[in-house]
Amino acid sequence: MAVKDIPMSRLLKLSHEFNCFYLKGLQKGDCKPFVVCGKQVGLIRPDVINQLIGYPDVFHVHPDAITLNPAFRDFDERTARLEAVLKDCRSRNVFVTLKGWRDECYAVRTVFSGEPLLKMDRCATCLFGICNYGVDINGYVNDPEKGLCIWLQKRSKTKQTWPGRWDNMVGGGLSVGYGVLETAHKEANEEASITSDMMKNLRRSGCVSFFYESERGLFPNTEFVFDLELPLDFVPKNNDGEVDMFELLPAKEALERVLSPDFKTTSCPVVIDFLIRHGHINPDTEPAYPEIVELLHVPLQSMYKGFQAATTANELNSNDEINNKLL
Amino acid sequence: MAVKDIPMSRLLKLSHEFNCFYLKGLQKGDCKPFVVCGKQVGLIRPDVINQLIGYPDVFHVHPDAITLNPAFRDFDERTARLEAVLKDCRSRNVFVTLKGWRDECYAVRTVFSGEPLLKMDRCATCLFGICNYGVDINGYVNDPEKGLCIWLQKRSKTKQTWPGRWDNMVGGGLSVGYGVLETAHKEANEEASITSDMMKNLRRSGCVSFFYESERGLFPNTEFVFDLELPLDFVPKNNDGEVDMFELLPAKEALERVLSPDFKTTSCPVVIDFLIRHGHINPDTEPAYPEIVELLHVPLQSMYKGFQAATTANELNSNDEINNKLL
Repeated sequence: MAVKDIPMSRLLKLSHEFNCFYLKGLQKGDCKPFVVCGKQVGLIRPDVINQLIGYPDVFHVHPDAITLNPAFRDFDERTARLEAVLKDCRSRNVFVTLKGWRDECYAVRTVFSGEPLLKMDRCATCLFGICNYGVDINGYVNDPEKGLCIWLQKRSKTKQTWPGRWDNMVGGGLSVGYGVLETAHKEANEEASITSDMMKNLRRSGCVSFFYESERGLFPNTEFVFDLELPLDFVPKNNDGEVDMFELLPAKEALERVLSPDFKTTSCPVVIDFLIRHGHINPDTEPAYPEIVELLHVPLQSMYKGFQAATTANELNSNDEINNKLL
Repeated sequence: MAVKDIPMSRLLKLSHEFNCFYLKGLQKGDCKPFVVCGKQVGLIRPDVINQLIGYPDVFHVHPDAITLNPAFRDFDERTARLEAVLKDCRSRNVFVTLKGWRDECYAVRTVFSGEPLLKMDRCATCLFGICNYGVDINGYVNDPEKGLCIWLQKRSKTKQTWPGRWDNMVGGGLSVGYGVLETAHKEANEEASITSDMMKNLRRSGCVSFFYESERGLFPNTEFVFDLELPLDFVPKNNDGEVDMFELLPAKEALERVLSPDFKTTSCPVVIDFLIRHGHINPDTEPAYPEIVELLHVPLQSMYKGFQAATTANELNSNDEINNKLL
């Protein structure tokens, strides 16, 4: 008997789309580990490696990995030397993503609980496949007639990334020095004028992890997810000019919006996770339910752990501090 | 600078424990794919392979896989021929897990959405690394004084597996022919006397996936998770003799119970997921939060997908129906 292949549901197709690098790119094997202080912190595509070769005092290109020069002494030196390369690349217009320079930095570490090894402008992390952490708030109401309804935002047409696309009510990246809850409060105020009184209802609800790739670069993203039940008469109002409008949609319509091409691909996982946790996506009618849930939580935290330095071993051993650690 | 290794939290250690096969066993590479109709449906350990060699008309042992004889025509023949082997093994007392024969079957398929290729007694699936699906209900109350409290059950001392251990309020396997929601209703009634009126509050809340190994075998498990808020004065009462007692614990004490050795290891993921979704485990105080969330949703559905028959290709090509599919 032949085993029939089941056609993919729209939701499964979308889950594959925001995990295109996890499901396809990784297997191709043309990216190389990015190693800092003897540990893998990212992955670098061939087009980026071709540029980094031009900075041999900062990046060492080995057959099995790209290492940041292990002679750099500390967080500040690593940060400054790498930033100088990025600014040079930016002035030469080499990478499209660097046009979005923000002067807002993300920490670079092996896993979320690891110590920061350097910091990097947020627009540059996708060049190195550095894991990004963000915060998202699902704002919802329980409407007596329409049932569960979700607030969505339309991104401003002037945004550097995903202009004019639909998005979650509130979301933002975790910048160096900010905590998860702290970022949630900051973004809720800036993006949607949510008062600290309303924020008393805020509930931590887990996180989603996925690995997306676009022409700009690699996006291994973990979003810390919060649910926030809002008063029926509340209307979000933007404070920072980054949002065009907000709209309140019943769960079913919100799902259709997420499945449409008008939604920011990398924000879909947060809404799908919300709809699953609130029972609006159903294992008896969506046969790929377990696969979709797994694709909302791909193992990013363990992905870079297995790296074993091989040809880079001599270089690492020549570094005193690491030698001390090994002894 | 050397990268310090962060000591693992108790919760992270436990998440590694219920994923011991995913994190360690898989890498060892001593298990072989179990292939039915040209598709991988499981993994078989060397101790089991040593026994299956004795049944060459049912199992074909290749260097890269064990196949169920592809000459078997259909679901019924595959089921009957494999069951005959298991019953023979049981009479010879070869595998400890077969002592727990239940006359209750699980479907064997490539992924949850796949068509069932055969069925197998639930006690035997761990010999073949077949993905098991189950249903769990988190029964909870919002106590005005103690806050969120969770009902747990103590398993009967006479149970075949995990006797006397603490467990979720209600849980059960997905038997052949039963739907997910249907199983939740059946188990809620049998295990805890929950009325259909109370079940109106039942909320689908996602699923957890993990891959555990014990001396009995391999356990790639996906549990469909439901939350059920119960009346403050309700006390669960067991109907099927499989539960010794129930206890209502505040969230913090429930977490301590889960972290203790008295809790059934393979039920921990459901309670941890509940405590995360309800905000009782916190990314600002638990640095391994994203890793723990990822370890509650390991990619079981894609694990067996990559299998490519190599030395088994000739055998598969000799099977007419599969040939038809390939043409």
